Amino acid sequence: MELPSGFRYAATYAGIRKAEKNDLALIFSTQPASAAAMFTTNRVCAAPVIVARDHLRKTRGVARAILVNAGNANCATRTGVKVAGDSCRAVATALKLRPDQVLPASTGVIGVELDGGRITRSAPDLAARLDGASFDSVAQAIMTTDTRPKIASESVRLRRGMVRIAGMTKGAGMIHPRMATTLAFVMMDARIPPRPLRLMLEAAVERSFHRISVDGDTSTNDMVCVLANGAAGFSISENERKVVGEVLAWVLEDLAEQIVLDGEGARKLVSIRVTGAKSDADAAQIARSIANSPLVKTAIAGSDPNWGRILSAAGNSGVDFDPRLVDIHLQGVRVCRGGLADEFDELAMKRLLDARECQIRFALRGAKKGSALFQTCDLTEEYIRINASYRT
Amino acid sequence: MELPSGFRYAATYAGIRKAEKNDLALIFSTQPASAAAMFTTNRVCAAPVIVARDHLRKTRGVARAILVNAGNANCATRTGVKVAGDSCRAVATALKLRPDQVLPASTGVIGVELDGGRITRSAPDLAARLDGASFDSVAQAIMTTDTRPKIASESVRLRRGMVRIAGMTKGAGMIHPRMATTLAFVMMDARIPPRPLRLMLEAAVERSFHRISVDGDTSTNDMVCVLANGAAGFSISENERKVVGEVLAWVLEDLAEQIVLDGEGARKLVSIRVTGAKSDADAAQIARSIANSPLVKTAIAGSDPNWGRILSAAGNSGVDFDPRLVDIHLQGVRVCRGGLADEFDELAMKRLLDARECQIRFALRGAKKGSALFQTCDLTEEYIRINASYRT
Repeated sequence: MELPSGFRYAATYAGIRKAEKNDLALIFSTQPASAAAMFTTNRVCAAPVIVARDHLRKTRGVARAILVNAGNANCATRTGVKVAGDSCRAVATALKLRPDQVLPASTGVIGVELDGGRITRSAPDLAARLDGASFDSVAQAIMTTDTRPKIASESVRLRRGMVRIAGMTKGAGMIHPRMATTLAFVMMDARIPPRPLRLMLEAAVERSFHRISVDGDTSTNDMVCVLANGAAGFSISENERKVVGEVLAWVLEDLAEQIVLDGEGARKLVSIRVTGAKSDADAAQIARSIANSPLVKTAIAGSDPNWGRILSAAGNSGVDFDPRLVDIHLQGVRVCRGGLADEFDELAMKRLLDARECQIRFALRGAKKGSALFQTCDLTEEYIRINASYRT
Repeated sequence: MELPSGFRYAATYAGIRKAEKNDLALIFSTQPASAAAMFTTNRVCAAPVIVARDHLRKTRGVARAILVNAGNANCATRTGVKVAGDSCRAVATALKLRPDQVLPASTGVIGVELDGGRITRSAPDLAARLDGASFDSVAQAIMTTDTRPKIASESVRLRRGMVRIAGMTKGAGMIHPRMATTLAFVMMDARIPPRPLRLMLEAAVERSFHRISVDGDTSTNDMVCVLANGAAGFSISENERKVVGEVLAWVLEDLAEQIVLDGEGARKLVSIRVTGAKSDADAAQIARSIANSPLVKTAIAGSDPNWGRILSAAGNSGVDFDPRLVDIHLQGVRVCRGGLADEFDELAMKRLLDARECQIRFALRGAKKGSALFQTCDLTEEYIRINASYRT
């Protein structure tokens, strides 16, 4: 994996989570980077979200570092904002930065005070250990119920040279597309001003993190942040920016798909494609409703070609459509035609649905062009086992 | 159980479902009854919903009979409307009624043609077997994944005599409060014109069926219907109507609670009380969001006092509130105070949550009076087992 130039990484165990596994990580840009971020829309938002938003406002979208801890969400905590602020200051001191150039992020249990001392005491050591290779250790340190680290990278050759993008994310539960979902950090060495970077991020998130769901719960700590530090060493044209935006979207799509694949208890990746809706927004709303139906998700878990539940879930989306114009395909086989049962071999279909990837296509006949792609996972007994005991 | 006067019941096995268990039932009023009904808001609605709505419009709210089958939802079917119409005609012929005085209802698998012959052939026998005592057999015949029949009754002494109300319902999955959920039929012998009966029903449903959820899926066949035949033999005053409306609401609340208690895989009844919101509607929206969070429901299944998930689910409701004003009580014990962790004995709390009934109280401090009560069940592995194999 070729990493973007001008970034350094470090991770350590600061004693925030019980298991002795790295829980504090730092991403550092050797030069000031344009920074754009999207945060949870949950009315209850964690202290690091409040502080990171404030820092980005103060710097007008410039950052040098991201400080992230796992094991404690620093949400619904008395001292949360102070702890997040102190943590940024400790890192800033160690790296000789302004505190508002550090963006904090947290994930873990809600409602337990985060011991700021563990972070501030670890900051100098963390700063001293920064290197160009520890990208993977950071991706590992931010994991909670994830079973594996999630990283993705792309590079693109532009007229004056290569631009590299590398991202990481975490998340397996409390995943619902109502804003940048979960934590995701993406670094690139292209030189892009904060405002166009923000637009790029929004477009990419709309295609990726806003199109996935595990369980329909939006977390209090969601944050997707992109840093563009220009270390590639050349400026890029307006047209080339579009290319970079497209490649950024690929990285986010890759990361988002990894989240769904690692969804709590998930055994299958379910792709839902809706076509023929009045608008892309209508199509997305239908797809989301199908993706969030526990009855559809359990049917997929049981390899049951239960298209009636898919039709019913679409009917609950709030979008107006004529059921008589609906065709539904599962794994490419039409099982519903014009809103009615189509003939298919039940046993063969069951076998097709045993695959690790399941395709649902919901097509409205007619000349309308609205379409959307959405990804989710099946809902298994393992999801219940994980969440009946894990303290978020 | 004292049944209302002037109603007759019958159930039989018509061969609609595979298991040889009654699947066709008839409720008959010996005199014309005022009828009011509420139907699913799913954009995909079953043929009997279309036909019943049409019949009520034609008769302006008068009915003599309800014909209901289990084993087939008659939804997404080519011949559905004709089959539902023919079924009503067969019953009407046998009982010498007008076909539009018969209201059809169906529950079961979606997308499989319903063999109308099985119903029309059974109609004469069904009509011949009507009696005053088979109320329970009807309640049993309409069951699908229900583990037990669900019936409730109340009576009230008015100035000129007694009024009796008896109802039945079915449903264990695809339960979500977006309209009259599942099938429910309520008979009463009070004399009440169709229009006030409709208002009574709407008010009662708002307090009962609209305040429960099992899995967040709204079915295509939902219907709650009340018949008031006046067989008690006297007219009632405006004021007494309010009393009857209240008692009707009790019956529906009782039925709704039974649905949640029998929710697929459910081991616990979860009551969510929200107080201090700006309005009752805001309170209901917060309560609904908590009730529909799989993370809250799995935590309850695991007896985990995970109030952070409750706070987070409320934050996702779309209602604006200040998290610092939130108190959360579980089983009467305050676990969150002003949006922060309160001190409580973790082990003792776990034991309290092992109870079959769990109370969640979400209180917003301040002078606002909006409140709501909502009921749901825990989410267990058994829900997945049931739905990964059952063909809706």
